[in-house]
Amino acid sequence: MKRQNPLLEELKKVLPEIAKNADKAEDLRKVPTENIELLKKVGLHKAFLPKAYGGYENSLPEFGDCIAALAGACASTAWAFSLLCTHSHQIALFPKQAQDDVWQDNPDMLASSSIAPFGKYQETDGGVIFTGDMRWSSGCDHAQWALCGFLRENKEGKKDHCFALIPATDYSIDDDWHAAAMKGSGTKTLVIRDKFVPEHRIQKAKDMMEGKSGGFGLYPDSKIFYAPYRPYFASGFSAISLGIAERMLAVFKEATQGRIRAYTGAKVGTATPALLRIAESTHQVMAARAFLEKTWDEHAEYAEAHRYPDQAKLAEWRTNQAYVVKMCIDAVDRLFSSMGASHWYLDKEAQRLFRDSHVTGAHAYTDYDVCAQIFGRELMGLEPDPSLL
Amino acid sequence: MKRQNPLLEELKKVLPEIAKNADKAEDLRKVPTENIELLKKVGLHKAFLPKAYGGYENSLPEFGDCIAALAGACASTAWAFSLLCTHSHQIALFPKQAQDDVWQDNPDMLASSSIAPFGKYQETDGGVIFTGDMRWSSGCDHAQWALCGFLRENKEGKKDHCFALIPATDYSIDDDWHAAAMKGSGTKTLVIRDKFVPEHRIQKAKDMMEGKSGGFGLYPDSKIFYAPYRPYFASGFSAISLGIAERMLAVFKEATQGRIRAYTGAKVGTATPALLRIAESTHQVMAARAFLEKTWDEHAEYAEAHRYPDQAKLAEWRTNQAYVVKMCIDAVDRLFSSMGASHWYLDKEAQRLFRDSHVTGAHAYTDYDVCAQIFGRELMGLEPDPSLL
Amino acid sequence: MKRQNPLLEELKKVLPEIAKNADKAEDLRKVPTENIELLKKVGLHKAFLPKAYGGYENSLPEFGDCIAALAGACASTAWAFSLLCTHSHQIALFPKQAQDDVWQDNPDMLASSSIAPFGKYQETDGGVIFTGDMRWSSGCDHAQWALCGFLRENKEGKKDHCFALIPATDYSIDDDWHAAAMKGSGTKTLVIRDKFVPEHRIQKAKDMMEGKSGGFGLYPDSKIFYAPYRPYFASGFSAISLGIAERMLAVFKEATQGRIRAYTGAKVGTATPALLRIAESTHQVMAARAFLEKTWDEHAEYAEAHRYPDQAKLAEWRTNQAYVVKMCIDAVDRLFSSMGASHWYLDKEAQRLFRDSHVTGAHAYTDYDVCAQIFGRELMGLEPDPSLL
Amino acid sequence: MKRQNPLLEELKKVLPEIAKNADKAEDLRKVPTENIELLKKVGLHKAFLPKAYGGYENSLPEFGDCIAALAGACASTAWAFSLLCTHSHQIALFPKQAQDDVWQDNPDMLASSSIAPFGKYQETDGGVIFTGDMRWSSGCDHAQWALCGFLRENKEGKKDHCFALIPATDYSIDDDWHAAAMKGSGTKTLVIRDKFVPEHRIQKAKDMMEGKSGGFGLYPDSKIFYAPYRPYFASGFSAISLGIAERMLAVFKEATQGRIRAYTGAKVGTATPALLRIAESTHQVMAARAFLEKTWDEHAEYAEAHRYPDQAKLAEWRTNQAYVVKMCIDAVDRLFSSMGASHWYLDKEAQRLFRDSHVTGAHAYTDYDVCAQIFGRELMGLEPDPSLL
Repeated sequence: MKRQNPLLEELKKVLPEIAKNADKAEDLRKVPTENIELLKKVGLHKAFLPKAYGGYENSLPEFGDCIAALAGACASTAWAFSLLCTHSHQIALFPKQAQDDVWQDNPDMLASSSIAPFGKYQETDGGVIFTGDMRWSSGCDHAQWALCGFLRENKEGKKDHCFALIPATDYSIDDDWHAAAMKGSGTKTLVIRDKFVPEHRIQKAKDMMEGKSGGFGLYPDSKIFYAPYRPYFASGFSAISLGIAERMLAVFKEATQGRIRAYTGAKVGTATPALLRIAESTHQVMAARAFLEKTWDEHAEYAEAHRYPDQAKLAEWRTNQAYVVKMCIDAVDRLFSSMGASHWYLDKEAQRLFRDSHVTGAHAYTDYDVCAQIFGRELMGLEPDPSLL
Repeated sequence: MKRQNPLLEELKKVLPEIAKNADKAEDLRKVPTENIELLKKVGLHKAFLPKAYGGYENSLPEFGDCIAALAGACASTAWAFSLLCTHSHQIALFPKQAQDDVWQDNPDMLASSSIAPFGKYQETDGGVIFTGDMRWSSGCDHAQWALCGFLRENKEGKKDHCFALIPATDYSIDDDWHAAAMKGSGTKTLVIRDKFVPEHRIQKAKDMMEGKSGGFGLYPDSKIFYAPYRPYFASGFSAISLGIAERMLAVFKEATQGRIRAYTGAKVGTATPALLRIAESTHQVMAARAFLEKTWDEHAEYAEAHRYPDQAKLAEWRTNQAYVVKMCIDAVDRLFSSMGASHWYLDKEAQRLFRDSHVTGAHAYTDYDVCAQIFGRELMGLEPDPSLL
Repeated sequence: MKRQNPLLEELKKVLPEIAKNADKAEDLRKVPTENIELLKKVGLHKAFLPKAYGGYENSLPEFGDCIAALAGACASTAWAFSLLCTHSHQIALFPKQAQDDVWQDNPDMLASSSIAPFGKYQETDGGVIFTGDMRWSSGCDHAQWALCGFLRENKEGKKDHCFALIPATDYSIDDDWHAAAMKGSGTKTLVIRDKFVPEHRIQKAKDMMEGKSGGFGLYPDSKIFYAPYRPYFASGFSAISLGIAERMLAVFKEATQGRIRAYTGAKVGTATPALLRIAESTHQVMAARAFLEKTWDEHAEYAEAHRYPDQAKLAEWRTNQAYVVKMCIDAVDRLFSSMGASHWYLDKEAQRLFRDSHVTGAHAYTDYDVCAQIFGRELMGLEPDPSLL
Repeated sequence: MKRQNPLLEELKKVLPEIAKNADKAEDLRKVPTENIELLKKVGLHKAFLPKAYGGYENSLPEFGDCIAALAGACASTAWAFSLLCTHSHQIALFPKQAQDDVWQDNPDMLASSSIAPFGKYQETDGGVIFTGDMRWSSGCDHAQWALCGFLRENKEGKKDHCFALIPATDYSIDDDWHAAAMKGSGTKTLVIRDKFVPEHRIQKAKDMMEGKSGGFGLYPDSKIFYAPYRPYFASGFSAISLGIAERMLAVFKEATQGRIRAYTGAKVGTATPALLRIAESTHQVMAARAFLEKTWDEHAEYAEAHRYPDQAKLAEWRTNQAYVVKMCIDAVDRLFSSMGASHWYLDKEAQRLFRDSHVTGAHAYTDYDVCAQIFGRELMGLEPDPSLL
C-alpha cells in the first residue's frame, strides 16, 4: 500500500521546473540557484533538520522517495541536494553548540562535505588549525558550511577519522568540476588554509557510528537521530539511482513507441525485442524499489524504536543499497543500449540518464566490489576487513 | 517487520522430517505418503479451503511463506502439495454442489489437476462424457479429485477453455513421471475414459478469471475468494523457487566454509570469489523476496477489499512472479557453478537444489519469454496477444 | 600465428600523435586536420582504393587490424576515417566514369556518406535532381564527395534504395554534431539543394550487394572487389569496438595497478575483484578478436576466390560483427564500472573509451536486437524479414 | 578455412552408434564397452600414442576437434575416453622403460588417472610402496593402467607432487560413481593397497611441466612431445564443453521448430524470443570455437617448433580454455532455460546436455574463479599464487 508522504506531494509540484533546468545544470556544472530556491520553498532541506530548529525529521522512507523523484527530474540536483540534506542529520549528532552555530540564526543553512580524510591539521588550544584541498564537495556552491575529513592522532598515537565543521567564510571554492556525468552536481574542491576549528565542531567518525558523538541523545523524542550517521548520510545514492532508472523506463517508452528504423521504416515500439527489454527492466526496477523500500523501512523501524543496528545489520543496509544501484544501472543499460545512435545527441534525455546512472555506482559507498566483500565476509562469518570501508 | 504466521510456525516443526525424505521422494518419483500426513497434520492443506468446510482461508502472503519454507526442505513435496492446496481455491469458485461433492463428507479431500485443454468430450444430457490422457498432474497419487482442462464448443461455435472436476474413482494413473528434476512431484498422467461429468462440475476458465463462475460470491466475508483463480492457482511456483534459493544460500555456506581445494589445500570459504558469489546471490534472493512479498501483499489488499484486479494488474502480478523465479534461478546458478564436481554426487543436496530450481522456471506460467512479452505489451500500450497466456 | 601487415606497421608510427589529439577531436567535434594528414601520409586511405589509381587493395584482415589499432588511439578518428576508406570500396563498384570523376585527377580524394534513403529527387534527362538534408555523414569535413541514399521509383513502380555520388561543391555542411560520445567523428548533415546527379553516379544498393553494379568485374585480378559492398562498407564498427576494448584493458591496468582507495588506503590493483575483472574482460576481448579474425579471414578467402557469399553467409558475417561489438562493450563495462568516480573526469581516458564503446553498438548495422533476429531467422530456416536490414 | 582431419572423418562414421548408447552409458554409469571398441577401431586412442608404438601423434587441433565431435554424441564417453587418450601423452614423458611396460606388448593399452595427490606411500628399495583410495578415475573400467598422484618428500624435506604409474592388476575399482551428470563417465575410485611401484614409473609433476621428466626428448622428430604434459592432459574439458554446446544448438532447433505451446497453440519456433536465443547462443558458441581453435593452434605452433611455453603462456592457455567452457555453458543455459518442462523428461536429450555441460565447468582445471585469479595475477604483473593451481 502506498504510504502517505506530504513532502513528496509538495516536491512533485516543482519537479517540472527542475526538469527544465537539467541542461542548464550541465552547462553551469552546478545546481542552478533557482533549483535550490524551489527545493527550499518546498522545504526538502528540512527533511533531516532537528525539529528544535523547525525541521521535519522525516523518516528515511519519506526522504528516499523524495530524492528518487527529484533524481527523475535532474539527477545532478538530487545528488547535490540530497547530500546537503543528509549532512543536517550528521550535524544533528554534533554538540548542541555546533548546531547552534549553524542553525540558530538561520535554520535554512546547509552544509556540503568532503569526508575522505585528506585534511591536514595542527593541534592548538581549543581545537585545530585546518588546511586542505578538500575534493568532491558536491553542492558546495549552495552551502554555508562544510564537513571536512581528516585523520587526527589520539592519545594512544593512533589516528581517528574525524570531521571538522567549517564555515564557508573560511574557504574558497576551486571551480574544478569537469566531468562527463553528474555534471550539474558542482562537485568541486574546497580550498582551506590554516583555519581554526574549535573542538565542539570536531567529531570522530567512529563515535558518530556508535552513538557516542557529542549530540547523541539530544532529542529524546526523535525518530531519526538514534541512529548512526552513515546510513542517513549515504542514503541518497541508491535513491538517485532508482529515480534515474524509473525515469529511464518512461523515456524509453516515449522514445520507442513512435520510433521507426531509418533504413527500413520498421516500427521498433511494437517489436518483440523492445517489449522484452522494457519488461525486464521494469521488473528489475520494481524489484529494486521493493528491496530498497524494505531496507528503508527497517531503518525507520530501528530508529523509531531507538534500536541501534549492530555491525551485521549495518553491513546489510549499506550493501543492500549498493545492490539496488547495481540493479538500476543494469536496467538503464538494457534500455539505453537498444535506443540507437540518435539518443546520444546532447539534447536527448536518455544519454544523460545513462551517464548519470553509471555515476551512482561509482561512489566509494556504492562500489559493489567493496560491498560484496563486506557482506560476503559477514555472511561467511569472517571478521570485517578494515581495508574495506 | 516480520508478519505473524502461525501456520508457518506449525509447519516448521515438521520440516526436518520432510527434509530427511527428500531422497526418498526422488526414488519414489512421488511425494512420500508420510510427508502428506505430516502436512495434513499441520493443516497446510486447509490454507485455501473455505471456512464453511473448516478451512483457514489464509492470505497469499501467509501461504507463500509456508510454501517457500516447505520448498527449502523438499521442493518436490512443495511443488505437488502447493498445487493440491491451490486447487481448493479454484474449487471454491465452483458451484456449491460441486464443493459439497468434494468436501461435505471429508474436508481433507484434495484435488490435483491437468489444466491444459487436452481433454476430449461429448455433450450429453446434464453434462459431458470426458476422455483424456491428462498429463502433468503433480501430486495426483495423493488426490481424490482432479481438475481437467478441455475446449468446449459454445453456442456461438467458439471454444471455451473449461475445467471438469472428476473423482479419482473415474481415472487411473499412468506411472510415467521419469524426469531429471522435481522427481518427487509425481507429475503423472491421468487416464480417463468416457466418464460422465455433470454440469455443476464444469466451469469456464474465463469465468473464473472474471468473477463470473458458479461459486463466485458464495462467501461474502471471505478475504481470498473475491479474486480470479489463477494468481492463487499459480502462486506456488515462485514461492518454491524462492525457497530453493534461500536453502541454497545455506547449503553453499555450509559446504564452502570448510572446503579446501584438492590440488592445493587452499581454503575456498575465505577466498574472495566465494565471498563475492554468496554476497551477490544473497542480495539477489533478498531482493526477490522483497519483490514477491510486495506482490503478495497487493494480492491480499485487493482480495481483502473485494477489489477485482484488471488485466494490467493481472499481467503485472503474474509476470512479477516469473521475474522472481528468474532471479532465484540466477542466484542458485551463481553458487552452484562454483561448488565443484563433488557437489554433483547424488547424495549432495546442492545438485538437487540446482536441478529443481531450474524446473521452477520451466513451467508455462513462469516462462519468462512469454511473461516478458505479456508485460511488455501492457507497458507499451499494446493489446494483449491471445497466443501468449 | 601473427600475420604480416606492413600498413599496420606504418600506421603504428603515427598513433602516438593521433592519441595526443583525442581531446582536441572532442573539442572540435570533428577529426583534427593533422590526423587526416598523418593517416594520408601513412597511406591508410588507399587501403580500398583500386590499384588502377595507385591504391593498395588491402584485404579485410589487414584493414581491420589497422582500424582497431587506430581506434585505440582515437575512436572518433577511426570512426570517420574508416568510413572514408570503405567508401572507396563502394565507389570501386560504380562505373568507371564515376571512379574517374573521383580519382583520376587526384587519387587521394575521399567520400563520406549518408546512406539511409532520406534524399529527395526529381527525374531529369540523364540523371536526377537531388535534394536532401543528409544526416550522419561522419568525416564529411575531410571528404570531397558524398554517397547519398534515396528511394528511386523503378519501371515497375517499386522503390529501389539507391546511392548518388555527389561532389562536395554541391552541398554545404550543417555543423550540427553535438553528441555525448564519438564526439570527434564530425557526423554532420549535408545540405543539398536541387543538384544534378548524372546516371553514371547512381547505383542501386541491391545491385551492389549482388555483383550487378556498374563497376562490378572491372578489376579481374582484384582480391577485394568480387564482393558485395556492405561487408566492407560496415567493417569498421566492430574493428573500432575491438580497438577501444583492447585499449581499455591497458588503461584499466595502468589506472588500477597504482590505485588506492581514498577512505582506507587499500590497494585496488592487487585486490581479487580487480583481478577477476581484468581476467574476464581480457578473455572476452581475446575471444572477440579470435571470432572477428576468423570472420575477416573468411571474407578474404571468399574475395580471393572470387566466390560470392549467399544470403546465409552474409547474415552470418554481418551479425558475427555485431556480436563482437556486444562482447567488446561488455568487456569495457566490466572494467569501467569498477574504476571509481575519478575516472569520470573529462581528462581521464577511461570515460571517453566507455562512451565511445557504447556508440559502436548503437549504429543500425550493429544493433544486436536486429542482428539476432536476422541470424535467428536464418538459423531456424525462416525467410528473411525485409523490415530487418 | 577448415583444416583437414582424417581421424575426425573416421570418427564421424561411428558417432551415430555412440549417440544411440548415450542412455545406456547413463544407466551403466560407465562407458559401454562397445563404445570403447568403436573408438579403438577408429584409432582415436592412438592420437597421442608415440609413433614408436604405432601411434598417430595428432596435433592438439586435430584431437580437440575429434573430442568435440565425440562429446556431441555422448559427453560421458568423450570425458572418459579423452582422458584415456591424453594420459598416453603423459606416459610418453615417462622413461622409455615405463612406456615399454605399458605399450611394448600391446599398443592399445590405456591408462586412467587420479592425479590429485592423495596417495600414501612408503619409500623402499627401487621405488615406493603405494596405498590409496584414488578417486575420480574417469574411464577406469576400460584402462589397464592408472596414473596416481601423491606427495613425495624430497631430499630437502619438501614435498613433490608425483605420479605413479600402476597396473590395473594392482588395484580394484570401487563402483562408487553415483552422480547427477556425466553419469556414463565411470568416474570411480581405485583401491590400491601396499603395491610396489618401481622408480622408473614415478615422475614429478613439476618435471613434466618443465621438460625435465625421464622421457623428455626421447622422440626428437615429434611435434607434440616437446611440451608440458598439462595442456594436453586437460585439453578434453573445453573440447567436450564445446561439443555439448554445438549439439545443443541442433537439439534446440529440432525441438523448437515444431514446438507449440500447450495452453495456446502458439508456435514457439517462429517466435522472436526463440530467434534471439538461438542467435545469441550460436554466436557465443562460434566465438568460443574461434577462441579455442586459436588457442589450440598456438599449442601446435609451439610444439612443432619445439618451443617451450613460459609461465605466462601456460596461464593464458589454461585459462582461455576455462573461459571457453564458461561461454559454452552460458550458451547451453540460454537455450535450455526456454525449452519448457517437457525437456526435463529423462528421454529428452536436452536435459542430459544441460547437466553434462555444467560438469565441464566444475572440474578443478576449468574452475573459472581459480582461472580468473591466475590470469588476473599474470595480467597485473603479480607473482603466481601457489594456492591457485
